[in-house]
Amino acid sequence: MSEFQYRGFAIRCPSDLKKLELEELPDVCLELRKYIAGIPTDKPAHLESSLGVTELTVALHYLLNTPKDALIWDVGHQTAVHKVLTGRGNQMYLSLRSLNGISGFPLPEESEHDLFQTGHSSTSISMALGLWLADKNRRIIAVIGDGALTGGQAYEALNIAGAMCANILVIFNDNHFSIEPNVGALSVHSRYEEFFKALNFHYSGPIDGNDVVRLLTALKEELDHKGPRVLHIKTKPQRLPSPQKTTSILPIRNLLRQVLGEAFEKNENLYLLSPAMLSGGGFLQLRDKFPDRVLDTGITEQACVSMAAGLSKGGKKTIVHLYSTFLQRAYDQIIHDVALQKLPVLFLIDRVGLVGEDGPTHHGLFDVSALCSLPDFEIYQPADLEDIRTSLQNWLQSPHLAALRFPRDSSLISGEQIPEEQFDYSSTCILANGFIAHMAYDAFQKLIGLGYTLDFRILKRKSQVFDPSFLKSLMQYDTLFLVEEAYLSGSFSQMVIAEIFLHTEREKIPKIIPIVLKPGFITHGHPDELLFLTGLHSDQIVKKILSNLDYK
Amino acid sequence: MSEFQYRGFAIRCPSDLKKLELEELPDVCLELRKYIAGIPTDKPAHLESSLGVTELTVALHYLLNTPKDALIWDVGHQTAVHKVLTGRGNQMYLSLRSLNGISGFPLPEESEHDLFQTGHSSTSISMALGLWLADKNRRIIAVIGDGALTGGQAYEALNIAGAMCANILVIFNDNHFSIEPNVGALSVHSRYEEFFKALNFHYSGPIDGNDVVRLLTALKEELDHKGPRVLHIKTKPQRLPSPQKTTSILPIRNLLRQVLGEAFEKNENLYLLSPAMLSGGGFLQLRDKFPDRVLDTGITEQACVSMAAGLSKGGKKTIVHLYSTFLQRAYDQIIHDVALQKLPVLFLIDRVGLVGEDGPTHHGLFDVSALCSLPDFEIYQPADLEDIRTSLQNWLQSPHLAALRFPRDSSLISGEQIPEEQFDYSSTCILANGFIAHMAYDAFQKLIGLGYTLDFRILKRKSQVFDPSFLKSLMQYDTLFLVEEAYLSGSFSQMVIAEIFLHTEREKIPKIIPIVLKPGFITHGHPDELLFLTGLHSDQIVKKILSNLDYK
Repeated sequence: MSEFQYRGFAIRCPSDLKKLELEELPDVCLELRKYIAGIPTDKPAHLESSLGVTELTVALHYLLNTPKDALIWDVGHQTAVHKVLTGRGNQMYLSLRSLNGISGFPLPEESEHDLFQTGHSSTSISMALGLWLADKNRRIIAVIGDGALTGGQAYEALNIAGAMCANILVIFNDNHFSIEPNVGALSVHSRYEEFFKALNFHYSGPIDGNDVVRLLTALKEELDHKGPRVLHIKTKPQRLPSPQKTTSILPIRNLLRQVLGEAFEKNENLYLLSPAMLSGGGFLQLRDKFPDRVLDTGITEQACVSMAAGLSKGGKKTIVHLYSTFLQRAYDQIIHDVALQKLPVLFLIDRVGLVGEDGPTHHGLFDVSALCSLPDFEIYQPADLEDIRTSLQNWLQSPHLAALRFPRDSSLISGEQIPEEQFDYSSTCILANGFIAHMAYDAFQKLIGLGYTLDFRILKRKSQVFDPSFLKSLMQYDTLFLVEEAYLSGSFSQMVIAEIFLHTEREKIPKIIPIVLKPGFITHGHPDELLFLTGLHSDQIVKKILSNLDYK
Repeated sequence: MSEFQYRGFAIRCPSDLKKLELEELPDVCLELRKYIAGIPTDKPAHLESSLGVTELTVALHYLLNTPKDALIWDVGHQTAVHKVLTGRGNQMYLSLRSLNGISGFPLPEESEHDLFQTGHSSTSISMALGLWLADKNRRIIAVIGDGALTGGQAYEALNIAGAMCANILVIFNDNHFSIEPNVGALSVHSRYEEFFKALNFHYSGPIDGNDVVRLLTALKEELDHKGPRVLHIKTKPQRLPSPQKTTSILPIRNLLRQVLGEAFEKNENLYLLSPAMLSGGGFLQLRDKFPDRVLDTGITEQACVSMAAGLSKGGKKTIVHLYSTFLQRAYDQIIHDVALQKLPVLFLIDRVGLVGEDGPTHHGLFDVSALCSLPDFEIYQPADLEDIRTSLQNWLQSPHLAALRFPRDSSLISGEQIPEEQFDYSSTCILANGFIAHMAYDAFQKLIGLGYTLDFRILKRKSQVFDPSFLKSLMQYDTLFLVEEAYLSGSFSQMVIAEIFLHTEREKIPKIIPIVLKPGFITHGHPDELLFLTGLHSDQIVKKILSNLDYK
């Protein structure tokens, strides 16, 4: 596939687009839609949301002069058309969301037309405000969807901008669909006009956001105005033929659905809340069956966690489901409204570790260090499906404050269970935790096959680290390899190192070699490639162990 | 001082209040105001905000039947009247905000009438929603001020409640004053009615919230209604004679004001944003002098940090000032919008460590473990005023992504500088970090006085932990005492332990004894008392060191 062309004329940058006549733009949009629809991707939903803003993107780049003018896309998964118009079409055909390829989100390293690397929602208006403070003469446009507007940060920024009379244009893209169908009173009752006006924004619209000519007129007018203003557009996202919907059949999803399905059936005091991640979690069927007790709260991590605190205080068994990366948004509420109140809420922390193609804004690598000092907060770190089942049932039988961390699903899951312990009565041991234990176990088996003697063990929960008999059993080794899909700082491995060290006589302290992630954000790519990139593939673990064994 | 009485009749619980005639209530309010104004306190602002809701509190407890009915006070520093009416008046006179005394915030351990222990704002509507989900027949009331309404979480919860038609009553207390004067378009333009209506709330008001009879009528009516509804009341906070305003003369504040004052004078590209903590930071004069570049964004941690990202991206030297405990609210924005973008923002993290009388919701103990894995993110941990000056000037001369952590000010600050290193060529060393180094230094001097030989050193920034020559210098010791005002998990001390351990030959690893906080939330009390409680007073450090020295 070659670069994007219109009537034989290559469009490599916004100035190419500006050479076209206004009358040609509807046709350009049609061609762009075809071009975008053809991009190979594992995530058609992102292309779909981009298709919905084809006309908007064309109109914006026809009128604006980025990067001099600042254009900020909220979340940023809707930027496929923007990327094509800024010269990245070819590369997207070759490498969208692949290692060393084009990111699924805006990325300043790729293009000067991308201002921020954004993967989480509701931040665009805040950033626009900051840019306006830095240069009050710059044209600044933030594009935000109705899903992102449910996030409290968007409201915070609107309220500040309205008070400051900030000269920013917010384009509010109302498509009744973000990653999940949208929720919230604003959306249900479509009272956006009153809402924006209450916040001192000048409001125009709604207009048809898929009519490029109408859009151009409206945008031109808005760009001529000053002050805080919003243009409300309505767009229709286009559906693409979906690849096999894998989420519903992935083994972790099956297991969760089955265990929780039974639990919801048995116990009508059980609730599950999720801030816009129910479908990603594979919980839509559960929601359809128990609509009063399985609730999507919208993109509202903060409110969701405090709601869970209320539910739990009200005597209900409460589970909060959210991705590790989005848990960061509710960090304070987890500490104050749940942990400090000693409420027995279970956090189902989904998408932990390296998530793959979504990249650095979506890897789940900060939750353990963030939660590790919270008292009486158990962190379950299952290594296989059976562990997930056990810890979940454990919590269901006797609720306590806990987090259960599990990956999206990955090639690491062979389906088969791996042993928690396998003793060879060696003086060397591999201690792994989390699903990466599969890689460690594979490495262990390869080493055994090579004639080495080793023990293999798995660490399954935070409290184990502080269990004297567990610690004592680790102290007997001469050499301990700790394998974890985490940065060392604040990791399970660092806690193990400190505890062994503090509780062992000096002459008996084992040599410990952590096999973990190096400090630094980690790029996007296929999960297997990222494993190699970070040195966590079983062959690399074997190599690392061999290079550290005295009897090499 | 005895318990609260009205005409010789002791009011120990809400049912005592209900025995009074409606006509007596205005008088009761007058008596209550006098009673509250007499409570000895280090924090008159909290009593002032309580005085403003005297009539509201009386009216609510006259009509409601807590704890059967759920009454949630947002933030909770306005609960002095509530505490008196629920039998805690006497104790408040004796021990408000003292160790083992009455908390400045609601506390379920104190009374069944307190539902949640709350110290951070904007959560009440979320909690009310959760309680409503748990029991749709319960009467549920959330009281929230106009300051707390600037927090995005309040909006998130209103939006969800409006969509769910939740049966909750929100009492919106509009007093144009929270801890800081309120900001935001809603407040400036007073467009609350449109705002609430847009979110599908039934709106009544505004009414005079200091007229108890008018309040009773309005509340009765609201309690008879169903659905999401808001009663807008306007109240006047009463000013109390202020004790000596200490914030303005505390040495850390003086230093910050002086260094930043000069820097703002010299460099017009320098900006400082703070989410409603400017006065707490001692920055009001700076703001008055540079109103365009020193900005209070309201209770909006999330928006504030992303605004800083925008400012920094726009080429401005940007500082964000916030307390450690409120940084938790912007954890995701710090990771994504600042660190991932490699923007050279400085986070001035105020109120780190044990803050004293505000207690567990305000201690600053989680920021290091939350931030420690962020790449290229320097964490400055000054031990004295000179360190603060040095690291601040260091950043001002060459901006980089960093956090500068400092306490509110405490008895630890003797004013004099303590040496970074003091060598006695001993095989034993105390390594301290942060202002608690003063306690450690005091202990060191006492031990020297007793005839022991020790070295004393201070760790001043995160990067030092990973500096080979610094590590090497630590490895030479036989015994190392690490003193830190932190939980071990994710602390500087834990990083030091892991790094020494991983980079030292086994037979040469020193014995390391961390002198840190035990896991668990820490109560309120005078900072000195909390030091003793947690074992960090210099005498306790001496004792701990002596009990671990081989040559004792």
